[in-house]
Amino acid sequence: MKAQRQFGDRNVGEPAVVLLSGGLDSATCLAIAREAGLELHTISFRYGQRHEYELERAARLASAFQVRSHRVVDIDLAQFGGSALTDRALEVPKHDSVDQLGPEIPITYVPARNTVFLSLALALAEVIGSRDLFIGVNALDYSGYPDCRPPYISAFEDMANLATRAGVQGGRRLRIHAPLIELNKAEIIAMGMSLGVDYSLTISCYDPQAGGIPCGRCDACLLRKKGFAAHGIVE
Amino acid sequence: MKAQRQFGDRNVGEPAVVLLSGGLDSATCLAIAREAGLELHTISFRYGQRHEYELERAARLASAFQVRSHRVVDIDLAQFGGSALTDRALEVPKHDSVDQLGPEIPITYVPARNTVFLSLALALAEVIGSRDLFIGVNALDYSGYPDCRPPYISAFEDMANLATRAGVQGGRRLRIHAPLIELNKAEIIAMGMSLGVDYSLTISCYDPQAGGIPCGRCDACLLRKKGFAAHGIVE
Repeated sequence: MKAQRQFGDRNVGEPAVVLLSGGLDSATCLAIAREAGLELHTISFRYGQRHEYELERAARLASAFQVRSHRVVDIDLAQFGGSALTDRALEVPKHDSVDQLGPEIPITYVPARNTVFLSLALALAEVIGSRDLFIGVNALDYSGYPDCRPPYISAFEDMANLATRAGVQGGRRLRIHAPLIELNKAEIIAMGMSLGVDYSLTISCYDPQAGGIPCGRCDACLLRKKGFAAHGIVE
Repeated sequence: MKAQRQFGDRNVGEPAVVLLSGGLDSATCLAIAREAGLELHTISFRYGQRHEYELERAARLASAFQVRSHRVVDIDLAQFGGSALTDRALEVPKHDSVDQLGPEIPITYVPARNTVFLSLALALAEVIGSRDLFIGVNALDYSGYPDCRPPYISAFEDMANLATRAGVQGGRRLRIHAPLIELNKAEIIAMGMSLGVDYSLTISCYDPQAGGIPCGRCDACLLRKKGFAAHGIVE
């Protein structure tokens, strides 16, 4: 498997922290960490997101993957504002087609979100003795967020290796694994299907209706739809 | 003034985010940011610390400095454990003299604390359009925490410059200012006194009694005492 090739066997049985949103990318990432033989510790965030429904899906995924531990951390990013994902006064942009997604950073970007999430994951990793953090960001079929790009992930990893006890005491380097970062959505889904991910447990929508019904027209819905369409699948 | 020399005048009137714990270091840092002519936005954290009393002092300092905004962000780091500052089942180490402080990282270290704090400060900075964050860490008279050392601060700054909209859109580099990092406690106090800091508003103790009475024997109390003693001051 690609996952085994990528991570080797040096980590088998070691604890890994996996950021789990409940979406398809993080579910795939979780499957990759499992395939690598790591002990799974998932972490999700209740951050004031309008699509808080995703946390139910994250919990179901954690259960389906029989993770060693699953945590939901409360951190109110809505208090800072600046994003349609946390501020109900702002509209989540809707489009008729994925071709309408522009190159600019959209209003659904949450300032410093991945940095806050990875920092809290780092705290957990240090306490449980994990040197492997997994995050399902990708920089191809994505919303153009700055904190999803390879140079950012690499810089976070460098910082994290100085931030903790291990940064003083030495030992194996802490790694931020972003195994999806250079895959498109169709490739992510192909990898997940090969690893047995049940995507019906996941939700991608930024603006779901009650009960988790996807809007079908936000960036996340359109990118998901495009990914499944490449496999001839209509959800 | 040293502060003016250090930061120049390019930032006068621009917003700065200052991490404010209520201790003497962060109070001094706040005075330095004021001296540099910046618009002050302070941020404090209720993170499950046993010395939550410090938040009262932070609020009094923010008021005394007439900051433009002051925020207290809730983030429960006690849920991860691993520190005597957040776990009441662990004892805060006490010593008779500052000479008893060893080179090892003490149990008061809170895993990834400064990374979590700086990440949340970064979120605030991005929303208010600030490119200057101030943190009162120092790596001389300190508790040996990994996230107080110059290479860590520098690595966080590099990461932060890739993490946000500005990392994509360009513009002036975001700076993490740690103006105390190479000063000893006596020098920090000298600088603060020259800038008019009222140190009676601050508290340093990791384990205060009710009403904010310092224990007098934890690392923080001993380092503070040593700093004032160098100026012939007994608090």
